[in-house]
Amino acid sequence: MRVEDLILVSVDDHVVEPPDLFEGRLSTKHAEAAPRLVRKDDGTDVWSFLGAELPNIGLNAVAGRPKEEYAMDPQSFDDMRPGAYDIDLRIKEMDANGVLGSMCFPSFPQFTGQLFARTAERDADLALALVQAYNDWHIDGWCGKHPGRFIPLAIPPLWDPRLIAAELERVAEKGCHAMTFSENVSELGHPSIHDADGYWDPMFATAEELGTVLCCHIGSSSKIVMTAPDSPMDVLITLSPINIVQAAADIVWSPAMKKFPNLRFALSEGGIGWVPYFRERIDATYDKHRFWTHQDMGERLPSQVFDEQVVLCYIEDTSGLKNLADMNEDMVCWECDYPHADSTWPTSPEHFMKEIEAAGGLTDAQIDKISHGNAMRMFDYDPFSVIPREECTVGALRAKAGDWDVSIKARGITASGTGAADLAKLSGTARD
Amino acid sequence: MRVEDLILVSVDDHVVEPPDLFEGRLSTKHAEAAPRLVRKDDGTDVWSFLGAELPNIGLNAVAGRPKEEYAMDPQSFDDMRPGAYDIDLRIKEMDANGVLGSMCFPSFPQFTGQLFARTAERDADLALALVQAYNDWHIDGWCGKHPGRFIPLAIPPLWDPRLIAAELERVAEKGCHAMTFSENVSELGHPSIHDADGYWDPMFATAEELGTVLCCHIGSSSKIVMTAPDSPMDVLITLSPINIVQAAADIVWSPAMKKFPNLRFALSEGGIGWVPYFRERIDATYDKHRFWTHQDMGERLPSQVFDEQVVLCYIEDTSGLKNLADMNEDMVCWECDYPHADSTWPTSPEHFMKEIEAAGGLTDAQIDKISHGNAMRMFDYDPFSVIPREECTVGALRAKAGDWDVSIKARGITASGTGAADLAKLSGTARD
Repeated sequence: MRVEDLILVSVDDHVVEPPDLFEGRLSTKHAEAAPRLVRKDDGTDVWSFLGAELPNIGLNAVAGRPKEEYAMDPQSFDDMRPGAYDIDLRIKEMDANGVLGSMCFPSFPQFTGQLFARTAERDADLALALVQAYNDWHIDGWCGKHPGRFIPLAIPPLWDPRLIAAELERVAEKGCHAMTFSENVSELGHPSIHDADGYWDPMFATAEELGTVLCCHIGSSSKIVMTAPDSPMDVLITLSPINIVQAAADIVWSPAMKKFPNLRFALSEGGIGWVPYFRERIDATYDKHRFWTHQDMGERLPSQVFDEQVVLCYIEDTSGLKNLADMNEDMVCWECDYPHADSTWPTSPEHFMKEIEAAGGLTDAQIDKISHGNAMRMFDYDPFSVIPREECTVGALRAKAGDWDVSIKARGITASGTGAADLAKLSGTARD
Repeated sequence: MRVEDLILVSVDDHVVEPPDLFEGRLSTKHAEAAPRLVRKDDGTDVWSFLGAELPNIGLNAVAGRPKEEYAMDPQSFDDMRPGAYDIDLRIKEMDANGVLGSMCFPSFPQFTGQLFARTAERDADLALALVQAYNDWHIDGWCGKHPGRFIPLAIPPLWDPRLIAAELERVAEKGCHAMTFSENVSELGHPSIHDADGYWDPMFATAEELGTVLCCHIGSSSKIVMTAPDSPMDVLITLSPINIVQAAADIVWSPAMKKFPNLRFALSEGGIGWVPYFRERIDATYDKHRFWTHQDMGERLPSQVFDEQVVLCYIEDTSGLKNLADMNEDMVCWECDYPHADSTWPTSPEHFMKEIEAAGGLTDAQIDKISHGNAMRMFDYDPFSVIPREECTVGALRAKAGDWDVSIKARGITASGTGAADLAKLSGTARD
């Protein structure tokens, strides 16, 4: 497989919501209360909402800037590459990077719409209207503008599993088969996925029936892994993906997996290098301890539950690729993470291929699965019905991009933060 | 390499302290205040200390019992195999399992002597006397009774780094080159290992100078990984070893590693399957983020710091053994974990070899390193100076054990616990 012939679909990118997001998508009453973008005297952009300012317009959207400027968060639209928020320019950025398809996670509403779940405590009507308007914008206004280029990803009305079920059905009719969920919903103040009364069953049942994947992005528990108040940032950055192993354990041992054996979760940005170890550990746990924990997985081993129900996602992970035989290669999907700091943009195809070589090589069939085939199957995404296959390759897309400027540009912003407390402050409401 | 020819040294076993532990090792004044073992009317054994009862005599010491009886904790000495607390019978258990050498972690004082650190808040003199008496018993009374069979492991007077330094020196003179420490000392209410003023430097400097390894056992932060109040036990059991990755990140990014490049930590019971992923992640973190986190590792990559300063320990870990090339094989040590639930006793040699075969095989030189060579070098342990090498093999030790009974025996105790809250309750002070 040559780099030019790759077809790349990323199951984890991020959209920084543009100011006109809610325009024309809300009733007059709700439109008045909707978040509005405000440029402040100091040049920063904030979302103004219900009397509060949400400073975090674009968490970590630092692609295309020198590494010295990887502060945690841009404070205005001027701090970002326009591809972060402009759909037509996003396509250019994708073309230049040879990326055909993309699934985009939200920014200011937080990964699983925590902002609107908090809104629901004050005004549930408004909250639901905002969630639906957001999803309509995302599906029709963002993904819909360039057919075949995006995997739509809805956010849930997280405060009510029956409303989520209804929203899952509503967006599925628009072709959306992915919804964000939390890596640990109990950290957000809701019942856990172990709930003995099946609190989340309406959502699980509908997601299973529709074939919709629940995508749990790292950080979606709104909890930062702080080992100590004075841990350096490097500790937090190191740990943020591996922390998803807690979500993996929750999922495998959740009673929901037995009730809904076709339900699927994705561990977005979770990496794959820890998976062989984890699969071994869950089976050993079952083998040694089930007699007194009274665990009964039925016909399956825990590793089978994991293999069948958990979509694995990685940006860069040579150790995982090297051990592909010890996980389900039909569930491994590649991610670009544009425009965040861990993205390989604008040389993703080269990174992708270099890693596979470093891992000792994969067959073309395996490469096709990981680069796009698994994502197409998992998310019911069929770009080739819209765009001829030969126009979907890295080579074809880059040719289309022409001389689109992908050079690294300084924007004059550096971070002063050096510890976990600074990160918590910098990230503000986006992670609280 | 045949199973009978293996030489096995375990760097992680556990001693359940016998009732006579402090006898003759304290002044009259301190002897009166020392913990005393009391058998209660209900048949349970507790340590009575400063007006409180410590119910946890032997955390998880369930070896040799049917899996149905893997409750978290035996409540009396009658619930355990006598090898848990009787040194002569321990040797029999080791012989029968073909294990030459063993490093034993404490039980009732908790992994890094948290019990005595709490005592120090009331009576620092007493606390230090107890730590020293404990270490004297451990080194002379436990390890010393059978020369060549144990790697001594001291506990620290955790409340004062200068006292720790002095204790490191005191026990080193008795041949002890291992001391327990915490996987996250800030969780225990002390400054973290990132402390800008170098709070722990006296301990680090002395440990480095003496070549003493600081052994951080999983669970030694006294913090259970609870994903939700109703997570089943299986989640906790799954996550307890992988949680050590947080300690690994703390160690790598601690300023102490630069100051003390020959200081060594061991990640006891931490497993090794996650290591290749982790090494890749720390180097990527450094490559991408150091420019704004202002991290400077000097001449070394983070993975080199890890490779040179962190001793890796595993009980069973096929995925790790399969990826030995992606870690420092000179730092990997095997563990037996007797008498805990995750132990492979009494068939450790067979487990050890079967795993190596499942991992695709290792050379005899690699097997020698992992089975005993690395442990001997790391902990300054030289059994062959005491016992002829040919008497140290699995085959020779088992021949010596004769027909020692290792059959599984029910003791009529089953667990009722099914959730994290139960675990917390069951574990009581041993993990609080």
